[in-house]
Formats: sequence, C-alpha cells, structure tokens
Amino acid sequence: MPDKTTRTRTVDWADGKVRLIDQTRLPAEFVLIDLETPEAVADAIRTMKVRGAPAIGVTAALGLALAAEQARDLEPAAFRERIATAAALLRTTRPTAVNLFWAIDRILALGQRDAAEPARAAAEMLREAQAMLDEDEAANRALGRHGAALLPESANVLTHCNAGALATVAYGTALGVVRAAVEAGKRLHVYVDETRPRLQGMQLTAWEMLQEGIPATLITDNMAPWLMRQGRIDAVVVGADRIAANGDTANKIGTYGVAVAARAHGIPFYVAAPVSTIDASLATGAEIPIEQRPPEEVTSPGATLLAPRGIAVYNPAFDVTPAGLITALITERGVATPPNSETITALLA
Amino acid sequence: MPDKTTRTRTVDWADGKVRLIDQTRLPAEFVLIDLETPEAVADAIRTMKVRGAPAIGVTAALGLALAAEQARDLEPAAFRERIATAAALLRTTRPTAVNLFWAIDRILALGQRDAAEPARAAAEMLREAQAMLDEDEAANRALGRHGAALLPESANVLTHCNAGALATVAYGTALGVVRAAVEAGKRLHVYVDETRPRLQGMQLTAWEMLQEGIPATLITDNMAPWLMRQGRIDAVVVGADRIAANGDTANKIGTYGVAVAARAHGIPFYVAAPVSTIDASLATGAEIPIEQRPPEEVTSPGATLLAPRGIAVYNPAFDVTPAGLITALITERGVATPPNSETITALLA
Repeated sequence: MPDKTTRTRTVDWADGKVRLIDQTRLPAEFVLIDLETPEAVADAIRTMKVRGAPAIGVTAALGLALAAEQARDLEPAAFRERIATAAALLRTTRPTAVNLFWAIDRILALGQRDAAEPARAAAEMLREAQAMLDEDEAANRALGRHGAALLPESANVLTHCNAGALATVAYGTALGVVRAAVEAGKRLHVYVDETRPRLQGMQLTAWEMLQEGIPATLITDNMAPWLMRQGRIDAVVVGADRIAANGDTANKIGTYGVAVAARAHGIPFYVAAPVSTIDASLATGAEIPIEQRPPEEVTSPGATLLAPRGIAVYNPAFDVTPAGLITALITERGVATPPNSETITALLA
Repeated sequence: MPDKTTRTRTVDWADGKVRLIDQTRLPAEFVLIDLETPEAVADAIRTMKVRGAPAIGVTAALGLALAAEQARDLEPAAFRERIATAAALLRTTRPTAVNLFWAIDRILALGQRDAAEPARAAAEMLREAQAMLDEDEAANRALGRHGAALLPESANVLTHCNAGALATVAYGTALGVVRAAVEAGKRLHVYVDETRPRLQGMQLTAWEMLQEGIPATLITDNMAPWLMRQGRIDAVVVGADRIAANGDTANKIGTYGVAVAARAHGIPFYVAAPVSTIDASLATGAEIPIEQRPPEEVTSPGATLLAPRGIAVYNPAFDVTPAGLITALITERGVATPPNSETITALLA
C-alpha cells in the first residue's frame, strides 16, 4: 500500500469542497469523501469521520469558509446570517476540543469584519482557512522536533488514542514527535494502546505505524501498566483536546490512567499539542466540558452488540490529567517543563 | 429470564458426564453442555468455555474423575496409565491459575493410592471431585461474609474481569463478596470493567449483575482511574489466579493497573480467593508463569477483525499485582491484612 498517511492530507480544500479521509472506514478501506455543505461538514465531525482536536478545528474552519463561498452573492445582512448560522451549527458538533471553537472564531471574525462585501469576505475566509492547513502541518513539524529532542536514542514509546497525521492535517502531534525522532535517526518502537471504546489506537495509530514502517505493537489499554512494571516503556507521548491555563489537559478517555501509571513507575509523560489547544480562559481542567457519548460505543465494539441488553453504561469521551502528572508540554513554540501557569504564559507571550 | 446464575452451578457432575455452562455463548445464549471424555473437558478449559481459577480447578477434577470412571474395569497398570495421561493432558490447558494443578494433584493422589482396585479408586476420585463442588460454594459463601464486613453500608465497588458465580462452582469470589454484602443489606453499586481482550466483565459480570438485580454500570477498563479521580469508587474487589507466598497476586490482565490507580487515590484494593489459589511453593509473584494468548483476541473483538493486518500484538492473559498494593486478601479462612508471608502463613496454618 502506498504511504498515504504522509502523502494525503487528512483534511483539505479541493474543487470547492471539503475533502476528508473517512476515518470511520480505516483500516479496512482508504476512502476520500468530498463534503459540499456546512451541514455535511458538521455531520462528519459529529460522526467522527474526522476526529482529533487539530483536524476538527481545521475542518470546521473549511466548513465555515464553504458556507461563506456559497453565500458570496447574497446581500450583506443575509451573508452575515448565513455564516453565523453555519458557525453556530459547527460549534454544536463536539464540546471538548477547544481547537474547534478557536478555528471557528478565527474564520468568523474575518467574515464579520468584511461582511459589507460578501464576495471579498468569503475569499478572505477561504484564504485564512487554507492558511490554517499549512500552519497546522508546520506547527506539527516544529513541535515534533522539540519533542524528539526529549526522547533517548533508543526508546519504547507508549501512545494512547491517535494523535497522528489523521488527528491533524498531516504529520501529527504525539506521532509527530515519534516521526521526528525517527527522522532524526532515533530507534523507536511504539506501543499502541487500542483505546477503547472507539479503538482509534487499534484502527488509526496502528495503521499509521504500518504505513510508515515504524515498529509498533498493539496492546489493550489495560496492558500498559504491566509493560511499565516490566521496564518496557521509556516514555509516554499523547496529544490533547484542551489544555487549561494551569496545564491540566483533557485528552481521550484513558489518558489519565496512563499518566497515573507513568508517575508510579517514574516514566516521563509528555503532552504534544499546538498552542491552539491551550484554552487560557479556563483556570483549571475542572472547567473543561467532558463529552458523554452513546452507550453503543462501549457495548458494541465493531458494531456487534457484545454486552447483555439492559446494562447501564458510562461513556465519557475524555478525561482530565492534572498538570502535576505531566512532565512537559511540547508545542510548536517550545516545551513547557513542567506545564504550569508560568511556563504556559511564557509560551503564549 | 430466571435467576440462572444462582440456580445453576457453573460446573457439575450430571448423568455420568461433566456439565458446564458454555461461557463463550453468554450473554447471548444460556447453554449447558455435557462433556463425555477427558479430552473434551481439556478442550473446554483451553477454549475458555469454562474459565475462572476455581471453576477450572473443579472442572479438571471432574475431568480426571471421568477418566477414572471410564477406566474402572481396566487392570491396575492400565488404569494408572490412563489417569496419569488424563492428568497430564488437563495440566496443559492453562498455565497460570494454580487451582488447576491443585485440583488435579488432589484427585490424582487418591487414584494412585487406590490404583490396585481401579473400581474403588474411580469411586473415591469421583466422590472427592464432587465434594470439591460443595466445598467451593461453601468457601465462597464464607469468604463473601468476611469480605462483606470490610465494605461500607453504601458503596460503589469496582471489579475487574469476572470473579463471579461463573468463575467458580457458584456464588463467586469477588462477586461473592458483593452478593454477601447485598444479602447483609448493604447498598452497593458495581462498576464493571469490561476487561479486554476477552470482555469477561462486559459479557459475564454484567450479565450476573443483571440476573441478580444488583445495580451495575459497565465501563471500559480505561475509565476506572477517571472514576476514582471523581471520587466515584469506594473500594475495588477482584479475584485471583495464583497468589505467591508473599501475597503477590496474578489475576486477569489489567488488575495491576487498577491496583496502581487505587493506591494513587487511597482506595482500598481487595483480592478475594479461596486458599486453594495460594501457591506457597512460590516465594514471590515473579515466579508465576504468565500465559500468552493469541493475537486475535486483541485484534478481533466479537470475532470481527478491527485492526490493520500485519500489526504486532502483545497479549498476556494475566499480570501480577505486588502484595504491597493489596489492602487485604479475603479467603474462606479469614482476611490477611495486609497479605504478606506472615499473614498468609497464619491463614494456611
């Protein structure tokens, strides 16, 4: 199979449409889908055809630019209303990843500024959304280099969920660190947490590692502490969905347990994310909204009901790892070691 | 559905055969199977139609008694050979749970003692194996009472895997503690770890809790630390597959991570097991053999391949929790608090 993960952007603007890799069909099939309306873009985010905080941010930005393009011939008032409606719809798709709101705000502000001339506003919005595609990849390559420097020459790295090329426009955050370390000649082996309930580790991270030829081993989430106990994990690198001003980090459910286990074994625990994932408006992680998802994700792995009918289910999509358990926050602007109000303020300055 | 878990023994002797609940068909179907040869019994253990340390111990005992029954008319030398062969076969089925070896040794010793009179030896072996059925249930009820006394009047209890009626002849070990607490009027709610890769929590423990009407909520394994962080777990109770002389405990993969997280949150972590699970011949848990199982258990939940083809997989069936993370070991002879060489020696005395 060709090296699709590094050649094809996870999300892109193509032929006046939003083009995505449909991540719900991986690893069985590699399928690109073209979305022609903001409603289709919102649906793709909600149903996780595209997921990963940076990727859904850029996708929402393109979705909003698409709404503007389609409203470019309207009167200013109608244009303004159409982009506001599209922005409101896109905001409802997922609650936890702050990149979504950051990206929508950034594109909407341009549209509002120039709404007196809808065609010009639409062009500006599209230009800005397309700039975010390049920015995202550049940020990941930069944070990858910063993170790679933290890893030993030879290391077993554990990752949770997929913070890879598929969670971003390209290259990845946590897997960007892995890719950069490999490009720098370090010898890495990656332990891939399967990441129940949606299995993004099994279905996306394992696929990316196979595509890249990076040695990797799939495990169930509950095996990670046992590997740590045996001395078989040298570092943990994960992504983030929202980081509070003090460094508390929301990420895929299970991340917190990995951080607790890493601390108990004296293993460094790194979070890799662009600064757009930092929500400086929230003092601590206690303020981060946690999405609750449908019970079927737990009871029916692979869409087959395996649980007994009638059992109650708890299914939070994310948890919050307190900053105190995070060795360093790796961003495109540098590394906050350890992440706290001071180091994060310095990064954002 | 009738209350099958408490009315039907998980394993029994019926009509000259070994009768089991086929646990690979739960929760979709409740099916009893009759095994007519020692080879069929060995296969049922190996393929996990019956699982759980106490249950496989008793099943192996019945399987060996079955071999003796079928050899009762042979000459002593041939009888001796047949039971030795059956014992050897049964020993190869699963390596970690010590109850298997304990039960086989106990029945085989009788057969060897009385082998000069095969018919009498076979009768003795069957009588002993049948006694083990009653002993197991009585032990579970006793340890249940000891464990129930340790739980608060109202508690959220986390359990991992299935150490229930289905893991024993009846009543269960960890779930025996839960049942005894409920019978004593305590108000319990059970969080059920789904327990990847084989999902014994989702498929067996959730089913038992529904059967008994005990309030329970299913979670993925990686949610447990997040529940602990939120103050929503008051105690953890798990079973055991083998306990070393110092209290180190092998149990289903993932148990160790639960213990690490419980310690980090100051939550009591209890192991419930009959004394037959203690292997006093092993000084520490480092000597316990850990079964490695096929990669398909990880890559294909519900028998559907979900991982990319070609990914490497690590699949240890068990891990070892050091005694220092165990608040108390609950047995039918009383509670070892904390478990260590002294308290365990005292229990066995």
